[in-house]
Amino acid sequence: MDQTKIILPESEMPQAWYNIQPDLPAPLAPPLNPGTGQPIGPEDLAPIFPMELIKQEVSMEPWIEIPDDVLRIYKLWRPSPLFRAHRLEEYLGTPARIYYKNESFSPAGSHKPNTAVAQAYYNKQEGVTRIATETGAGQWGSALSLAGALFDLDITVYMVRCSYEQKPYRRMLMEVWGGECFSSPTDKTNAGRAALAKDPDTPGSLGIAISEAVEDAATHDGTKYALGSVLNHVMLHQTINGLETKKQLDLVGEKADVLVGCVGGGSNYAGLFFPFVKDKLDGQDIDIIACEPTACPTLTRAPYRYDFGDTAQLTPLLKMYTLGHSFVPPPIHAGGLRYHGMAPLICLLVSQGVVEPRAFQQPDIFEAAITWARTEGALPAPETAHAIKAGIDEALKCKETGEEKCIVIAYSGHGHFDLAAYDAYLSGEIEDYQLPQEEIDRALAELPEIAEPS
Amino acid sequence: MDQTKIILPESEMPQAWYNIQPDLPAPLAPPLNPGTGQPIGPEDLAPIFPMELIKQEVSMEPWIEIPDDVLRIYKLWRPSPLFRAHRLEEYLGTPARIYYKNESFSPAGSHKPNTAVAQAYYNKQEGVTRIATETGAGQWGSALSLAGALFDLDITVYMVRCSYEQKPYRRMLMEVWGGECFSSPTDKTNAGRAALAKDPDTPGSLGIAISEAVEDAATHDGTKYALGSVLNHVMLHQTINGLETKKQLDLVGEKADVLVGCVGGGSNYAGLFFPFVKDKLDGQDIDIIACEPTACPTLTRAPYRYDFGDTAQLTPLLKMYTLGHSFVPPPIHAGGLRYHGMAPLICLLVSQGVVEPRAFQQPDIFEAAITWARTEGALPAPETAHAIKAGIDEALKCKETGEEKCIVIAYSGHGHFDLAAYDAYLSGEIEDYQLPQEEIDRALAELPEIAEPS
Repeated sequence: MDQTKIILPESEMPQAWYNIQPDLPAPLAPPLNPGTGQPIGPEDLAPIFPMELIKQEVSMEPWIEIPDDVLRIYKLWRPSPLFRAHRLEEYLGTPARIYYKNESFSPAGSHKPNTAVAQAYYNKQEGVTRIATETGAGQWGSALSLAGALFDLDITVYMVRCSYEQKPYRRMLMEVWGGECFSSPTDKTNAGRAALAKDPDTPGSLGIAISEAVEDAATHDGTKYALGSVLNHVMLHQTINGLETKKQLDLVGEKADVLVGCVGGGSNYAGLFFPFVKDKLDGQDIDIIACEPTACPTLTRAPYRYDFGDTAQLTPLLKMYTLGHSFVPPPIHAGGLRYHGMAPLICLLVSQGVVEPRAFQQPDIFEAAITWARTEGALPAPETAHAIKAGIDEALKCKETGEEKCIVIAYSGHGHFDLAAYDAYLSGEIEDYQLPQEEIDRALAELPEIAEPS
Repeated sequence: MDQTKIILPESEMPQAWYNIQPDLPAPLAPPLNPGTGQPIGPEDLAPIFPMELIKQEVSMEPWIEIPDDVLRIYKLWRPSPLFRAHRLEEYLGTPARIYYKNESFSPAGSHKPNTAVAQAYYNKQEGVTRIATETGAGQWGSALSLAGALFDLDITVYMVRCSYEQKPYRRMLMEVWGGECFSSPTDKTNAGRAALAKDPDTPGSLGIAISEAVEDAATHDGTKYALGSVLNHVMLHQTINGLETKKQLDLVGEKADVLVGCVGGGSNYAGLFFPFVKDKLDGQDIDIIACEPTACPTLTRAPYRYDFGDTAQLTPLLKMYTLGHSFVPPPIHAGGLRYHGMAPLICLLVSQGVVEPRAFQQPDIFEAAITWARTEGALPAPETAHAIKAGIDEALKCKETGEEKCIVIAYSGHGHFDLAAYDAYLSGEIEDYQLPQEEIDRALAELPEIAEPS
């Protein structure tokens, strides 16, 4: 049997992030000020973000140097290994070669620290002492708490209520790293109080939690806000993942034919696939498949238009596929994929046909995850299981056609804190779910009419 | 900053386990048949173990080849990385260089799969279809369930009740891999029923759980028993860890001055330090420190004598430091260290002064674990935190003396399923505990008088 882990030495770790903005196939629609309908400037974002991140948000430089202090911390888990899934291939009987880029070995168990560490660094550099944020499944909140511990920053996390209750270990993990974690909606913010008044039993949503964290940052001195996905600078920091993957594929003489990854806000998968987009635009034949849950079908069923990033309409308007900022997805176990919108950069690439979206049912992704655990050994996060399901589907297609494709799965995180979800699946408690069209229509009806700037 | 991870390529992975038996500084007292008082032969063990493992148990060959099928599975996480703990060193301000051999990246999260995979392989080779075992904190039960999935064997696990209740995620993990897990004592075995009759509220113990698993294996066709620690062949399989560590230290021009590890049955630490024992016996100056909880102080407070490995007196008699087979340790969070005895090979080395035992209080090991998480990032198992505490103590001694020692910590597993324990610690619910001498005396008074064979 060939090599199982393709390891890049620390000395070969990329020293700069890749900025996709100069290479986009069409111009990116700018974020708009909801009051004026005009593109926002740096001054609009300054109250909640440090200036260096605002610059990165709009930069047209193709490469942005990674600070030494960030590289040193990256070495705690980077370069991350690229695995060959030999045992899954044998189990499926596929002629495809399946690889997975394993981000689960970071201290927080996912790709999230790639940007958490960078954001904490830039905040620290600019004198910030406390960061407020939101978290869905808890991956981001724990990653930022870790980064806070490493850079001596106070961290406050608003955690979506249904995940807070499903995943108590994530809250405890944040506290081990010194973070403070609240179940959102809270009664600590106007946004939280409004959500509770509307529905005291709400399972919460990322939209509401974002509103709470932004309000917290805007109303406390020395406090800034951090977002774990969606924004351009977050995608940027994640690209170290795809840059490493390209080097690792080169080491074994491979070229990717198919990339699969899960998308909630989009950052883990953007991190993997952005460095491959130019190759595709230059004519290389690569399928780039973005996987989402049927319960929150942003890319597969929502329109591409301007909307707020949060429920309380505090953020700038972003052009994206959106189910509507007031949409509250059902409390599925892949909490990290419960977001009404999607990173504008990914949405642009979907709208241009560069990225193909697919939606999956919960029982199917858990079945794929169990197959994975019993062949490859490791236990994936339910979010990651969406990518695994797509990878297995593609490998089985190769079995039918005889094609020897090279498939790369974005293995975004482990499921060690998601075992209650596996328990529910094995007990037969997880069923298919089709989101009623009326729910989408109702949320979309609440959207303001936005004239796109010419 | 220098390299953080010292990585051994898969091509450099050791191809044979190291058997310490020919290199021992004194003869190992043989296991005895409790009925006759005579050393047992292979025929005594054949009902519960496959023959190849029985041979390994008594082998005097210095090297035992690792089967190809085992090596292939090892590659899912081996060679495991040796880390330099730069950030902890800086935090402590020590001139010592601290390394840790990280076994937490195996699919089960600890060193246990090193032997689980080997044992499953040999059982499968000899036609066994089902394996019964016990587990303390759940590390071993999940590792064997993983191995069962990879070799298509049915696995039944008797899990010590207090851990079963403290760590439900470990049970779920076993089930994801297809294992079956019961809270021990059960009403399914004579041993379990006897323990429940004696005390219906018992927190359980490894001794009771071993009795149940051995009885299960002895009374079911096609079923064998597997032990995750204590026995010679288990220590043997773990030595790949220390063999890799020596190669990795060579890569950076280091020689270990101090080794620290935690011991329950002893296998994780034996795996790390056995390959260094000959160097020490040949005159190299290495401190080998074995860490245990003050709540189960086998090496630091118990006598060295023959005793049963289990509560129901089903196993052969083993010469070891023992608190008495009827001893039930308090339900501390480091469940993997709650064993009344200790691997005979380690006990011999302690009795010969080769290994130095130390005991630690729970609040101290959790304090060390929090320091670790906030500097090195990763979350250690409470068992592993004993090793970390000793490593920090040794590094602080170096700070006083100015010695630039090379300290290697056996980082045996992650604490992702132990967050309830961290939560209890951070809430101030974990206190110092000193085991009353009467409890030890009472259990020791129940031991039979055994005449040692001459």
